[in-house]
Amino acid sequence: METTTPIHIVVLGAGFGGLNFCKQFQVPGARITLVDRTNHHLFQPLLYQVATCGLSAPDIAQPVRSILSDRPDVTVLLDNVTGFDISQRRVLLEKNSLSYDYLILALGGKTGYFGHPEWERFAPGLKTLEDALRIRSHVLLSFERAENEADTAEHDKLMTIVVVGGGPTGVELAGSFAELTRTVLKRDFRRIDPTQAKIILIEASPNLLSNFPRDLSASARRQLEALGVQVRTETMVKAIREGEVELTSGETIQAANIVWAAGVSATPLTKKLGVGLDPAGRVKVNPDLSLPGHSEIFAIGDMTFVPQADGKPVPGVSPAAIQMASHVAKIIEQEVMFAANRDTRPAFKYWDKGTMATIGRSAAVAWIGKLKFSGPLAWLAWLFVHLIFLIGFRNRTSVFFQWAYSYFSYKRSARLITNLPEKN
Amino acid sequence: METTTPIHIVVLGAGFGGLNFCKQFQVPGARITLVDRTNHHLFQPLLYQVATCGLSAPDIAQPVRSILSDRPDVTVLLDNVTGFDISQRRVLLEKNSLSYDYLILALGGKTGYFGHPEWERFAPGLKTLEDALRIRSHVLLSFERAENEADTAEHDKLMTIVVVGGGPTGVELAGSFAELTRTVLKRDFRRIDPTQAKIILIEASPNLLSNFPRDLSASARRQLEALGVQVRTETMVKAIREGEVELTSGETIQAANIVWAAGVSATPLTKKLGVGLDPAGRVKVNPDLSLPGHSEIFAIGDMTFVPQADGKPVPGVSPAAIQMASHVAKIIEQEVMFAANRDTRPAFKYWDKGTMATIGRSAAVAWIGKLKFSGPLAWLAWLFVHLIFLIGFRNRTSVFFQWAYSYFSYKRSARLITNLPEKN
Repeated sequence: METTTPIHIVVLGAGFGGLNFCKQFQVPGARITLVDRTNHHLFQPLLYQVATCGLSAPDIAQPVRSILSDRPDVTVLLDNVTGFDISQRRVLLEKNSLSYDYLILALGGKTGYFGHPEWERFAPGLKTLEDALRIRSHVLLSFERAENEADTAEHDKLMTIVVVGGGPTGVELAGSFAELTRTVLKRDFRRIDPTQAKIILIEASPNLLSNFPRDLSASARRQLEALGVQVRTETMVKAIREGEVELTSGETIQAANIVWAAGVSATPLTKKLGVGLDPAGRVKVNPDLSLPGHSEIFAIGDMTFVPQADGKPVPGVSPAAIQMASHVAKIIEQEVMFAANRDTRPAFKYWDKGTMATIGRSAAVAWIGKLKFSGPLAWLAWLFVHLIFLIGFRNRTSVFFQWAYSYFSYKRSARLITNLPEKN
Repeated sequence: METTTPIHIVVLGAGFGGLNFCKQFQVPGARITLVDRTNHHLFQPLLYQVATCGLSAPDIAQPVRSILSDRPDVTVLLDNVTGFDISQRRVLLEKNSLSYDYLILALGGKTGYFGHPEWERFAPGLKTLEDALRIRSHVLLSFERAENEADTAEHDKLMTIVVVGGGPTGVELAGSFAELTRTVLKRDFRRIDPTQAKIILIEASPNLLSNFPRDLSASARRQLEALGVQVRTETMVKAIREGEVELTSGETIQAANIVWAAGVSATPLTKKLGVGLDPAGRVKVNPDLSLPGHSEIFAIGDMTFVPQADGKPVPGVSPAAIQMASHVAKIIEQEVMFAANRDTRPAFKYWDKGTMATIGRSAAVAWIGKLKFSGPLAWLAWLFVHLIFLIGFRNRTSVFFQWAYSYFSYKRSARLITNLPEKN
């Protein structure tokens, strides 16, 4: 590429993929424009703690501008992507359009309802800060209403939380709701007994955490049940209506609080790319992560379908997005700085560093290489890894403080109902 | 009062007045029901720091239930007051109604627009957490839009913040916005220069902080101007439209960000009491703070009009609300425990412990008895007093940490735009 103007790289999305690309790619003669529809990078692995009153929103989010303030070669734009003009090498934004030499698609995913978008109203997912704050307010408000409710059936419904989906998010949410009701809220009500709240975790397959080894799945289940969670595996949802989950068995569960943690699909924008997609809408990329027929466009992170040697796709987790970002940054660096040949790009290879899920106080499961452990040790490992990877000194210190506070006081700091309809 | 059932005291509002009444009144044979439309007690003196990205919402709010969890004699209800049936001694709530032996009205105030409620849409006030979060998002979003704006006039409008009202809230907001733009956002944009943002503080009277001695008002003005705030006294607003403030001088200021800090009026519920009100809608109470003709009803805090010896009313500040709560708690205690005569109740007397306003880093004014000081000493006094009075160990520690962090890093932790319309 011989141009006198600097190479322009457009990065769409400031999640783990997009942000880490920007952090790792710094090459003289190249500039980056990073576009996101929010102003913050969100540390999604801790989002469930915002939904369950443990952390405040600013604890797990940082302004993208602030993270990249020492990078004059990076321009950050708050805007919505509306489409692509790939033949003209342009990205279409709501208020703008940008031309690029390289385009990095890192737009992530959204909650998927397996063809039932109408369930979203009654069973919100957990992908954004707004989702988390809405779930937090809704659950707290249900307990407030129960305190004021004479009708027994309605009272029981208000005190029931159903989490659909037994993956890491579902397990973490259910465990955290159980602790919230069993310990944090325990002494605060006069008429209701929060420790009697029903927390029901529904999973269609026979095991929780189906990606984990069987014994860890079983351990996660035992740890959840010890906290008082009703775990119902091999249980399938037929329909969700307001305050009601209908199962394929014919049973109907009355629950004022339903959270959907069962499915993720890629951003709908992948449909506008004109390339092959998997059933979850993820882009089927070349081994180097570029788009078929477009060596100047890469897709990374949760929106990308990359088969591994064993046939399973690379999982939609943050370490995978970070590794993809790093892979693409190195490829472009070689091409911009050393005019490397595009035909000899290396293939991406995912390195599974292990995976873990937390269940509650001193309760977790972790699987790192050949090591499998559960209980307090897994829990400490989880705390440590999440503190290390949280971006920003401020957030790390604040989260550490909140965790220590909750651990010793059995309280949670962010029990706020916001956005109530205002009356007087 | 001779009853076999316990005396029932209904307290409406969990602000400084209502909450402190509950904390100070604990008498065998009496029970309290505390009603609020939110689930949290809000530390309003720091609300402006949430609006200007310095603190997160949970830092200055605590669940009312949690504060009173060791008080089995207090029942907390989340509900809206809809009216009163004073002859039957009943309070009407949205979902309930409550009978009482004593009623404590502590419903506070709301932003007042001097007969122009239509201005609220374009110039929100700062009374609730939602207000603060909305102002925070709006200002941050304006800077994001400016970064993306080619038109110069529109760019300038987006980078203008007008604060109407030069009382403590207006002064604190203007100073904090100036610091936000001059230091925190300084290095984060590529196209706009946040240090060039216009912060305009408008005050109708000749002096800022008109309740303060003249030399402190002048000092506040100098300190604000040193931060880059344009202070315009003797300036009156004629009309407010979307992105536009029209002055009585005929001049019009284009500003995408307008915050109203000019007036407070009592809750509109005072109109339903059938007693005399002052022009701001505050209840004209007897010297003991009871309602004329109803010795079993008291009004305390911002909704109460109490003239002092010098003719000026007791100011609408938190120490006044707390002192009123304490006064009423003692009266009722005497009557419940010792059957004291209602005709010999003492009159309420406000003890002015001093007042202060912060302007920015090391900049403040304070007036305590005969002491008047400004600058770093006043600032330290302000920090100290606010940390001491903040309720809860968690909040005190967290706020202290956020302040230390901001002081040393010149950053602010809560720069989040939330509740953006979601597009993809």
